[in-house]
Amino acid sequence: MSKDDSKKALKELGSKIVHQVKKGKNPEIEFPLRNLSNIVYDKKSKTLKLGQKTGTRSFFNVAHSKKFLQTVEVASVIKEKLLDSGKHSSLRDVFYMVKKTIPGTKVNLVDDQTESDKAIEDLEVMTGISREEMHVNANKNGSVAGKVIIEDRGDTIDWSKLGSGGWSIPSNVEEITFKKVDAKYVLYMEKAAVWERLNEDKYWQKNDAIILASQGQTTRGIRRLLQRLYEEYNLPIYVCCDGDIYGAYIYSVIKYGSIALSHASERLTIPSVRYIGITMDDIEKYDLKKHFITLDEKDYARIKQVSEYEWFKDNKDWQRQFKMMKEFKAKVEIQALSARGISFISEEYLPKKIKNKEFLD
Amino acid sequence: MSKDDSKKALKELGSKIVHQVKKGKNPEIEFPLRNLSNIVYDKKSKTLKLGQKTGTRSFFNVAHSKKFLQTVEVASVIKEKLLDSGKHSSLRDVFYMVKKTIPGTKVNLVDDQTESDKAIEDLEVMTGISREEMHVNANKNGSVAGKVIIEDRGDTIDWSKLGSGGWSIPSNVEEITFKKVDAKYVLYMEKAAVWERLNEDKYWQKNDAIILASQGQTTRGIRRLLQRLYEEYNLPIYVCCDGDIYGAYIYSVIKYGSIALSHASERLTIPSVRYIGITMDDIEKYDLKKHFITLDEKDYARIKQVSEYEWFKDNKDWQRQFKMMKEFKAKVEIQALSARGISFISEEYLPKKIKNKEFLD
Repeated sequence: MSKDDSKKALKELGSKIVHQVKKGKNPEIEFPLRNLSNIVYDKKSKTLKLGQKTGTRSFFNVAHSKKFLQTVEVASVIKEKLLDSGKHSSLRDVFYMVKKTIPGTKVNLVDDQTESDKAIEDLEVMTGISREEMHVNANKNGSVAGKVIIEDRGDTIDWSKLGSGGWSIPSNVEEITFKKVDAKYVLYMEKAAVWERLNEDKYWQKNDAIILASQGQTTRGIRRLLQRLYEEYNLPIYVCCDGDIYGAYIYSVIKYGSIALSHASERLTIPSVRYIGITMDDIEKYDLKKHFITLDEKDYARIKQVSEYEWFKDNKDWQRQFKMMKEFKAKVEIQALSARGISFISEEYLPKKIKNKEFLD
Repeated sequence: MSKDDSKKALKELGSKIVHQVKKGKNPEIEFPLRNLSNIVYDKKSKTLKLGQKTGTRSFFNVAHSKKFLQTVEVASVIKEKLLDSGKHSSLRDVFYMVKKTIPGTKVNLVDDQTESDKAIEDLEVMTGISREEMHVNANKNGSVAGKVIIEDRGDTIDWSKLGSGGWSIPSNVEEITFKKVDAKYVLYMEKAAVWERLNEDKYWQKNDAIILASQGQTTRGIRRLLQRLYEEYNLPIYVCCDGDIYGAYIYSVIKYGSIALSHASERLTIPSVRYIGITMDDIEKYDLKKHFITLDEKDYARIKQVSEYEWFKDNKDWQRQFKMMKEFKAKVEIQALSARGISFISEEYLPKKIKNKEFLD
């Protein structure tokens, strides 16, 4: 959706309210409910989505009026301060821009960032405009390298000519344009240290791949970048993580979505993504038992939880993995491969897995 | 120090041991102690440093032999696997490369990463070669933009032509070469969201500045990059943080060093660095009281601790800040400035502070 479409959608929302006021009606807004009871796993699209339930919020209702005002004020700040000026800002900035006293009272419009965050999410589901399209950015994190040329804010950027650092992935990738994409697949890894290994070994050059990593979290910017590369260039996306339940979860969020962002699934999930990281089968194959890290209570609880997710429940391959994790009573980090040679991961492990299509789906 | 110097230093260490063995002596290595009793604040250089105390570690000593072996094995891995091949790796990778059974026993040479980490630190202080020069990388994090051109691994990289993302700062900046540096100062900020604001406003272009941010932690790569820009181009470094004790500590680490890395102070600290973030005086000046966040027990404890650091103890300006923090019973985030306008920070707050030299030292 273009900036003009975004502005138009927010303007329509305002016009509707003005119209109701002029007709002497109690102004109200309708929106899909976002609580757990309305979050469903859609087996057809294989993503977490919002169901059909909707709620309304009206001005002359003591229980609603503050939230009503918050939604309208956030919409106004986004339209006037961000879209009209062409500027972007973070969730935290929007909170401070919205934080003011309601005229004629001593009551703050918002006291806590969760209130403005929720208003933004409501606007996302009401209008179909994503947070990024409303110029509200998520966290910035991650690096990318590969034979790709993009245009961004007037600059032409060649991801193959950025030395040891790579391009720093912005929080918002909606406005970048791909000019040339010369790659057979995209490899996303959870650890920046692994990315540095692959980058030093020019993995992306030797294997016609795009390599991409965050540190710790898969930000919305990264998920959107992966999705755009998949949708616009039909590139397969492989996710490379540690051999543990957290790795499985990172993969699961990219593939199926997350409960917190279920309203944005369409924009963020990539159902065709495949897992290429350490599996429980790799442990025998690559002699990794000596690098076992014993599971603790928290790990077992997480295995139980993740293995019961609707999208994993009937997945035999993953259920086998979860079972083996419990039998081994251990996890293995991707970096344990370094014991077999510093470039073992980039020269043998990954190319072999890709050649033999050893993925988990 | 060049790669050849690093190799030479490690080789000398090995030769010495071989020499001792050949002479029938108990092989031993001597190193400066790194425990708290030997960490001193050097008032002259204004940095945390190691004192004069040294210890020895010998092979035929039950209490020493494992650590002796660890140090020698880590030195060997660094020399053979990293320096000889020209490759770099993370602390975690080195741990896995060192992790093996001691021949003829069932004992692991290292069981925990802290053991190989400590051996690396010992080698740093024994040889004077930094971890980065030994090709052992710290975490990768952060972005940079400005009118700077560098060379790195054969690529020429223009920091002014990298769109909304910027250059992703590598974990190791020892081998980059500055080709052109057109800037009056360097602005380092603790928050990536603030960096994105300044980058979108082309702050670096309008103000002839280099802007640099991490997310969460000031990595060794970032500290070294700041130090190199200061030492090689004599650029002033300004640190922009939240108005709280954690901001003061971030500044303090860059300026004076940290206890954990006191052995690397010379390579990491920048005594001339100045604080430009939110101060307690800004609260009146910019009407920020309404954005107060109340301090909790942890905050008070940290204020006490930081205010008693030797380098802050006699600093009247900072003591006044700490006192005001306690009187206000509150902290203020840098993003609270957004309430005064989305680009207030880049168009007014920072340029004004720099023009009027409103720094804390």
